[in-house]
Amino acid sequence: MRVLVIHGPNLNLLGNREPEIYGTQTLDDVNELIATSAADLGLQVRCEQYNGEGQIVDALHAAQATADAIVINPGAYAHYSYAVADAIRSIAVLTIEVHLSNIHARDEFRRTSVTAAACRGTIGGFGPLSYVLALQAIAKILEK
Amino acid sequence: MRVLVIHGPNLNLLGNREPEIYGTQTLDDVNELIATSAADLGLQVRCEQYNGEGQIVDALHAAQATADAIVINPGAYAHYSYAVADAIRSIAVLTIEVHLSNIHARDEFRRTSVTAAACRGTIGGFGPLSYVLALQAIAKILEK
Amino acid sequence: MRVLVIHGPNLNLLGNREPEIYGTQTLDDVNELIATSAADLGLQVRCEQYNGEGQIVDALHAAQATADAIVINPGAYAHYSYAVADAIRSIAVLTIEVHLSNIHARDEFRRTSVTAAACRGTIGGFGPLSYVLALQAIAKILEK
Amino acid sequence: MRVLVIHGPNLNLLGNREPEIYGTQTLDDVNELIATSAADLGLQVRCEQYNGEGQIVDALHAAQATADAIVINPGAYAHYSYAVADAIRSIAVLTIEVHLSNIHARDEFRRTSVTAAACRGTIGGFGPLSYVLALQAIAKILEK
Amino acid sequence: MRVLVIHGPNLNLLGNREPEIYGTQTLDDVNELIATSAADLGLQVRCEQYNGEGQIVDALHAAQATADAIVINPGAYAHYSYAVADAIRSIAVLTIEVHLSNIHARDEFRRTSVTAAACRGTIGGFGPLSYVLALQAIAKILEK
Amino acid sequence: MRVLVIHGPNLNLLGNREPEIYGTQTLDDVNELIATSAADLGLQVRCEQYNGEGQIVDALHAAQATADAIVINPGAYAHYSYAVADAIRSIAVLTIEVHLSNIHARDEFRRTSVTAAACRGTIGGFGPLSYVLALQAIAKILEK
Amino acid sequence: MRVLVIHGPNLNLLGNREPEIYGTQTLDDVNELIATSAADLGLQVRCEQYNGEGQIVDALHAAQATADAIVINPGAYAHYSYAVADAIRSIAVLTIEVHLSNIHARDEFRRTSVTAAACRGTIGGFGPLSYVLALQAIAKILEK
Amino acid sequence: MRVLVIHGPNLNLLGNREPEIYGTQTLDDVNELIATSAADLGLQVRCEQYNGEGQIVDALHAAQATADAIVINPGAYAHYSYAVADAIRSIAVLTIEVHLSNIHARDEFRRTSVTAAACRGTIGGFGPLSYVLALQAIAKILEK
Amino acid sequence: MRVLVIHGPNLNLLGNREPEIYGTQTLDDVNELIATSAADLGLQVRCEQYNGEGQIVDALHAAQATADAIVINPGAYAHYSYAVADAIRSIAVLTIEVHLSNIHARDEFRRTSVTAAACRGTIGGFGPLSYVLALQAIAKILEK
Amino acid sequence: MRVLVIHGPNLNLLGNREPEIYGTQTLDDVNELIATSAADLGLQVRCEQYNGEGQIVDALHAAQATADAIVINPGAYAHYSYAVADAIRSIAVLTIEVHLSNIHARDEFRRTSVTAAACRGTIGGFGPLSYVLALQAIAKILEK
Amino acid sequence: MRVLVIHGPNLNLLGNREPEIYGTQTLDDVNELIATSAADLGLQVRCEQYNGEGQIVDALHAAQATADAIVINPGAYAHYSYAVADAIRSIAVLTIEVHLSNIHARDEFRRTSVTAAACRGTIGGFGPLSYVLALQAIAKILEK
Amino acid sequence: MRVLVIHGPNLNLLGNREPEIYGTQTLDDVNELIATSAADLGLQVRCEQYNGEGQIVDALHAAQATADAIVINPGAYAHYSYAVADAIRSIAVLTIEVHLSNIHARDEFRRTSVTAAACRGTIGGFGPLSYVLALQAIAKILEK
Repeated sequence: MRVLVIHGPNLNLLGNREPEIYGTQTLDDVNELIATSAADLGLQVRCEQYNGEGQIVDALHAAQATADAIVINPGAYAHYSYAVADAIRSIAVLTIEVHLSNIHARDEFRRTSVTAAACRGTIGGFGPLSYVLALQAIAKILEK
Repeated sequence: MRVLVIHGPNLNLLGNREPEIYGTQTLDDVNELIATSAADLGLQVRCEQYNGEGQIVDALHAAQATADAIVINPGAYAHYSYAVADAIRSIAVLTIEVHLSNIHARDEFRRTSVTAAACRGTIGGFGPLSYVLALQAIAKILEK
Repeated sequence: MRVLVIHGPNLNLLGNREPEIYGTQTLDDVNELIATSAADLGLQVRCEQYNGEGQIVDALHAAQATADAIVINPGAYAHYSYAVADAIRSIAVLTIEVHLSNIHARDEFRRTSVTAAACRGTIGGFGPLSYVLALQAIAKILEK
Repeated sequence: MRVLVIHGPNLNLLGNREPEIYGTQTLDDVNELIATSAADLGLQVRCEQYNGEGQIVDALHAAQATADAIVINPGAYAHYSYAVADAIRSIAVLTIEVHLSNIHARDEFRRTSVTAAACRGTIGGFGPLSYVLALQAIAKILEK
Repeated sequence: MRVLVIHGPNLNLLGNREPEIYGTQTLDDVNELIATSAADLGLQVRCEQYNGEGQIVDALHAAQATADAIVINPGAYAHYSYAVADAIRSIAVLTIEVHLSNIHARDEFRRTSVTAAACRGTIGGFGPLSYVLALQAIAKILEK
Repeated sequence: MRVLVIHGPNLNLLGNREPEIYGTQTLDDVNELIATSAADLGLQVRCEQYNGEGQIVDALHAAQATADAIVINPGAYAHYSYAVADAIRSIAVLTIEVHLSNIHARDEFRRTSVTAAACRGTIGGFGPLSYVLALQAIAKILEK
Repeated sequence: MRVLVIHGPNLNLLGNREPEIYGTQTLDDVNELIATSAADLGLQVRCEQYNGEGQIVDALHAAQATADAIVINPGAYAHYSYAVADAIRSIAVLTIEVHLSNIHARDEFRRTSVTAAACRGTIGGFGPLSYVLALQAIAKILEK
Repeated sequence: MRVLVIHGPNLNLLGNREPEIYGTQTLDDVNELIATSAADLGLQVRCEQYNGEGQIVDALHAAQATADAIVINPGAYAHYSYAVADAIRSIAVLTIEVHLSNIHARDEFRRTSVTAAACRGTIGGFGPLSYVLALQAIAKILEK
Repeated sequence: MRVLVIHGPNLNLLGNREPEIYGTQTLDDVNELIATSAADLGLQVRCEQYNGEGQIVDALHAAQATADAIVINPGAYAHYSYAVADAIRSIAVLTIEVHLSNIHARDEFRRTSVTAAACRGTIGGFGPLSYVLALQAIAKILEK
Repeated sequence: MRVLVIHGPNLNLLGNREPEIYGTQTLDDVNELIATSAADLGLQVRCEQYNGEGQIVDALHAAQATADAIVINPGAYAHYSYAVADAIRSIAVLTIEVHLSNIHARDEFRRTSVTAAACRGTIGGFGPLSYVLALQAIAKILEK
Repeated sequence: MRVLVIHGPNLNLLGNREPEIYGTQTLDDVNELIATSAADLGLQVRCEQYNGEGQIVDALHAAQATADAIVINPGAYAHYSYAVADAIRSIAVLTIEVHLSNIHARDEFRRTSVTAAACRGTIGGFGPLSYVLALQAIAKILEK
Repeated sequence: MRVLVIHGPNLNLLGNREPEIYGTQTLDDVNELIATSAADLGLQVRCEQYNGEGQIVDALHAAQATADAIVINPGAYAHYSYAVADAIRSIAVLTIEVHLSNIHARDEFRRTSVTAAACRGTIGGFGPLSYVLALQAIAKILEK
C-alpha cells in the first residue's frame, strides 16, 4: 500500500512559521513521524512539499499511477483553490485532507474548505498527529 | 483514562436513517466498535445519545467530573448551536468533534461548524471510523 | 390510518398568544377541530405539543412505529432547526408542515422554512383550518 | 360561490414537463380533477392558464367582478413578480397560492415566494391535490 | 411638444387599490389632472396603461416616433425589469420616472429602482402631483 | 408661506465641482433661480448651505419655528446619515429631498437614500431644476 | 411583586467558565446578590437556570401565573432562538434581557439579539450588576 | 433540420440601440446573416422577435412541434426570467443561448444568466457572429 | 464623583419627536430626573446635548479631565459613527451607552451598535429610566 | 494566422476525469479535432496545457509575439484567477474563452467567470465542439 | 509649495490613545516631525486637526486657495464618510491619504477606505513615518 | 542593508500593459529607478519578477536568508492569495506592499488586499514612485 503525503504552501517553514499556531516541529520532524507511523501500519509512504498550486495539481495527477492513497494538507489553498479540488476529483485515489491547526477556530476565511469537498474526509487541529490519524484511516479503509 | 462519547440528534436512528449518507450500521454497532477500539487503546469509554440541545449541554457539564476527554458528534447542532459551543468552552476537558459524513461535500449550511471552533480538532467523513480515529487521537494526546 | 399531530413551541398558549396573528381559539379548541375532522375522514388522530427541539425530534422518531402520517407545526423551529429537519428525513413517514399564520407575509426570518424542505408539502395561513387541510391531504394520499 | 383558478407559466405543458418533478398528469387532467372537486364542494370553478406576467395581472383584476375566490399557481413568477403580488393586493378577493412541487426542497431561488406574501395562505407539494385542498379551504372560509 | 404618459401594472385599479398608500383618485381622475396640466403647459399629452412588461417595452419603442418626452410610472417593474430599463436606454427620448408613493419609505425591495437608472430623473411621493411635476420638468427641459 | 432650502455638503463648490456631473452653475446661480421661482410661486424662500451633519440637524430643528416647508439636498449624507433622517422625522414640517444628479445612475452606494425615507417625496436628476420642481410641489401641497 | 430570574445555558458553570469574560463569581454568588438586591427593593425573587431551549420556553409560560416581571439572561440562545423570542411575546409579563458581558464587543454572531426584540429593554456588560439594574428597572416600572 | 431563432426584448431596435455596445447592424441585417449562414449549413431557419416574457414562453412551447433546435437571445430576461428558464426546461428541444455583447464584461447584474442554466450551451460577445456560431453548433450536434 | 451625560442628535426635540417611540417628556424633564437621581446617588452630574458627530467626539475628549464616568446616548450615531466609537476608546473613562427605545425591536439598521462595542455596557428600552439605571451602575462600579 | 490554444488545469486528464461531465475523449482526441478544424479553416494552431496559474500567465504573455489569436479554457481558474484575467488584458491579442461543460448549470461558484470579462467572448457547454466554434469565430473575426 | 496636513478625528489624543496601536508620540511630536521633514524637502507645511466631518470638508475646500497638496489622515471617517470623499473630488488639489496603523490588519470595517478612492494614493502602517513618506511623494510629484 | 523587490504577475509587461492605468515605463525603467533610489539611500537592492503564486512564496521564503527587508507588489494576487499572505507571515522579514495604481479607486474586487494584512504597511497609487517611497520607509525603519 503506497501513500503519498502532499504538504502545501509554507509548510516547508514549519517550526519557524508562527509557532504559536503551527508548533515548533520542523517539516523534517513531521516527515519522520509520518515515516515511523506508516512503517508501523505497514504502509509505504512518500512525502512531498509544494508551494505552487499547479505543482500540487501535477503531484495529484502523478499519484494516480504511483499511490493507493493520498494525504494532503493544502494549506491556504484549501480555502480558494478550485483547481486543486478539481484535481482531487479528477483522479480515482482515496484522498484525505489534514490540517495542523483547527481551521474552524481561526480567521473567517479559513472556516470553509473547498478542497475538502473533493476528499473522502478531513482531520484537523491535532498538529502533526493529524497526519498520523490520516494514515491510520487509510490503513483501515484500504484493508477492507 | 475515561472518555465520554456524545452522539447528537438523530444518531439513534443510525442504520435506517438516510443509509446512502450515514451507512447501514446501527448505533449499537457503532458503539460496539467504539468499545472494542477503546479497549485496544486502554481507554474507558461511555457512550450517550441525546436529541436535545440542552441535554447535550448538560452532558458536557457533567463530563467535567467524570471524563478526561470527550468525543462529540453534534449532528445538525454543529451548524447553529452556539449553546453547545459555549458549553464546550465552559469546561476544561479535551473535546474532539466527529462527523460520519463529509460535511464539506453536502448542503451549504453543513459546510461550517460553530461547535468545531470550540473543540481541539475535528474528524469527519469516515463513517464509524471517525469515532475510532478520535479515540486514537485522545490516546496519543493524553499519554503525553 | 393513524395520524400524529405535533404542535411546536408556544402553541400551548394559543388563544392568548398574540391573538391578532394567531387567533383566539385555544389549543384545546384546535385539537377538538382536528379530532372531529379526523373522525369525518376515518383517521385516528393523536395530538401532542412540545416546546423543546429535542422533544420534537423524539416524538418524530417514536412516530415511526405508531403513525402512518404526521402533521407538524414546528412553530419558530421551522426557521432554524436543522435537527428537526434531519429527524423528519430520518423516518419513513409521510409528513406535512402546517402554519397557522402566513409565514410569507411576516418577519424576514419567517419567510423560509428549513423543516419544510424535509416534508412532503406545506400548508399555511389558514389558522386552525391549516390542520384540517393537512388531514384531508393525508386521507387522499394514503388512500391511494 | 365562483372560484377562478389561474395556472401560471409553463403549466400548459404539464405532463410532458420535467415529469419527475411535476408528474405525468396533463393540465386537462388537473382541470378535470379541479372541476370534479369543485362540484363536490358546491363551488363554480373556471380555470385559465397564462404564460405572461401581464396576462396574470389582467386576469386577477378581472376576477374582482367575476370571482369570490382565486386559486393561483404563479409558477416561476412566485419568486420574483412583484407586479403579480401587487395585483393580488390590489383586489379584494380571497386568494390562495398553490404549488405542485414542494418549493422549499428545490433550487435556492424557489424557496421564497414574493406573491405568497400577498395571499391568504399557501399550499404546496401535493401535486394536483394542492388545488383540491385550496378549493376545500375556500369552501370552508367562504361558508362562514 | 408631444408627451407620452405610461402607467405601469395595477395603476388601472387606482382608487380602489390600497387607498391608504395610493390615494382615492381613480386613473381617470389622474389622467384628467395630467391633461389639464399639460394643456396649461402647452404640451400635447397621451396616457396609456399596461400591465405587461413586454407591452411597456413596445410602448416605449413606439414612442420614438410619436413622442418628444415620456413620463413613466413603471409600478413594481421599477424594481426588477431590466427589460424596461434597456428599452428606455434603447430609445433617444427624454424619459422621467414617477411614483405615486415614496418608494424609499416602503418595503426593502422598493427602495431601489433599476429603471430609474435609465431615465433622466425621478419624481416620487407626491401622489398624482408627481405626474404634474414631471410635465413641468419636461416643459422646462424641452423649451431650452 | 416660508420655505427653507438646505444645501448639503460640497454644494458650495457647485460649478467647479465635477462639472460633468453637477453642471457649471454656481450655488449663487442656483439660489438666484430658486429665489426667482419662489417669487413666481408666491413663496418666501431662504437658502442655507452646510457641510456638517450636525449643522444640518440644527437647521432642520430651527426650521420648525421658521418654515412651512423644507427643500433639502443632503448630498452624500443622503446615503448614510440616519441622524439627518431622524431630524426630519423629529419635526412636523413638509420636507422634500432633491438631488442635482440622477443618483440611481451613479455609484452603487448612491442608489439608496436613507434620508428620503423620512421625507414626503424626492425629486432628482434635473440639475438646478430639481429645486424649482420641489418649490412647485410645495406650492401645490400647501395651497390645499 | 414577584420577579422570576431565568439564567440560560452554561450559566450554571459561572465562575469556572471563561472567567476572563464572565468573571469569577459562581451562580450562587450571583443569586445571593440578586436576592439581597431584591429584598432591598421590596421584590420577591426566584432564580432558575436551564440549559434547554424548551425548558426556558416552559419557564416563561409558567411565569404568566406566578410572576409580575421576568429577568432573563438567554445566554447563547439570545442570538438564534426565535422560539424563546416567541415565548416572551406569547406572555403578557414585563421582561428584561440581561447579559453579563458586553455582547457588542465580542464575536460577530453575538452582536445582535433576536430575543431582545421581544423584551421591554436590555442591560448588558456589567457582570452580575446587570441583574441588579434589571431589578431596579422592574421596581421603578411596576411601582407606577 | 428546422431551427427557430428567438430574439428577446429590445433587439428589434438593433442598430439604433446603444450602438457602442450592440453595433450598427439592424435586426434585418442580422436576420439576413442568419438566413445566409443557415442556408450554407443546410438548415431551415425562422426568426422571431418578442419583447414580452410570456410571448417568449409561448414561442418556446410552440417550437416543440415545429423546430429541431432553438437559438435564443433572451436579452435582459437572461438575468431574471425563471419563467423563460422553466420554459426551456419544459420542452425537449436543443436550445443554445446567445448574446451579442460579452455579458461578463458589463454591469454586475448581467454577469450571471439564469436562462443559460437551462440551455445546452452559451455563445456570447461576438456580435451577430454569435448567432452564426450557434447555427454551426446546431449543425454539428444534430448531424450526429 | 463627576458624571457627564451626553445626549446625541435630535434628543433636544424630545417630547415632540415621534412621541409614540420616544415618549412625551422633554429633554429638560429628563435632565431634571437625571439630576435628582444623581443627587440621590451622591453623584455630580452635568448634561450636554449635541447634534454634531465632531462635537460629541470633542465632548468625550474633554471629559477625560472633567468626568469620572460618562453616560452617552449616541442616538442614530450609535449605528454608524466609528469616529465616536474611537473617541470612547481613546479616553480612559468609564462609559455607558443608553437608549430610550429598545433598538433591537426597531428598524434593521438600529439593531446593532458600533459605539456600544467601545463602552463598558449598554442599557436600553426603558425611556428616561435608562439614564437613571446608568447612573446607578456608575455609582456601584465607582464605589468599588 | 496563428492560433494558440491554452488548456488549463486538469484538462490533461480529460477522458478519465469525471466523464459524466467532461466526456470520454482524451486531450489528444480533442487536440486532434482542433488540428483538423484549424486546417479546414486555414489556421495554424498550437495546443498547450498547463496546471499552473503562473504558467498560463507566462503562456499568454509569450503569445503576444507568436499568436494572432488565443483560445483559452481556464478550467477552474476562470472563477477566481484575477492574475490570468489581468494577463489577458495585458496583451493585445484576440482571446476567446471556452468551456467544455455549461458552467451556468453547475456549482454556484462556477456560474461567474472573472477571466471571461477580459476576453472578446465566451463559448461553453458544447464539449470539444466549443473549441471548434472558437476557431470558427477567430477565422471570421480575423478575416475582416 | 504649500502643503496642508489634515489630521482627522481622535488624532489630537495621539500618545494616550490606544498606544499599542497608535504609538506613544503625541500629535505635537508628529507635527514637529512633519515640520522638520517638510523643511528638508523645501515644502511649506501647515497642520490642522478636526474631529468634525463637516470641519474636514470645510478645510478641504479652503485648501483650494491655500495649498498645492494635501496630506489627510481621515481616521475613522475613511471608512464611511462619502461627504469627505466628495469634498476631495470637489477640489483640484493633489491629495494623499495616510494612516498610522495598517488598516488592512485590523477590524473588518477598517479594511476598505471610501475616501482613498478620491485620493491620488495611500500610505499606511508606518506610524508617523506615513506622513513623512506622503511629503516625499508630494515633493516628487510636484517637482515634475 | 539588503532589500528584495518582488514584482508580481503581469508586471513584466509594464509599459505596454493597459498604459492608461499602469503608465508607459517598462519594468526595466522601474528597476533602474529602484536601483538609483536604493543607491542614494545606501541600500543594496535586487529585483525579481514572478507570474506564479508558488514562485512568489518561494522567493519570500528564500528572502529570509538573503534580505533585511522586502518590497512586494503582489499584483492581482493581493486580492485573493492567502498562500502569499501566509508566506509573508511565515518569515521574519520587514515587508511592505506597494501598488502602482490606487487600488481603492478601481474594480470592487481590488479594493481590499488580503496580503496587505500580513505586511508592515502599504503604499499605492504613485506609479513607480510607490517603490521609491517603500525604499525610503525601509531605510528609515531599519536605521533605528
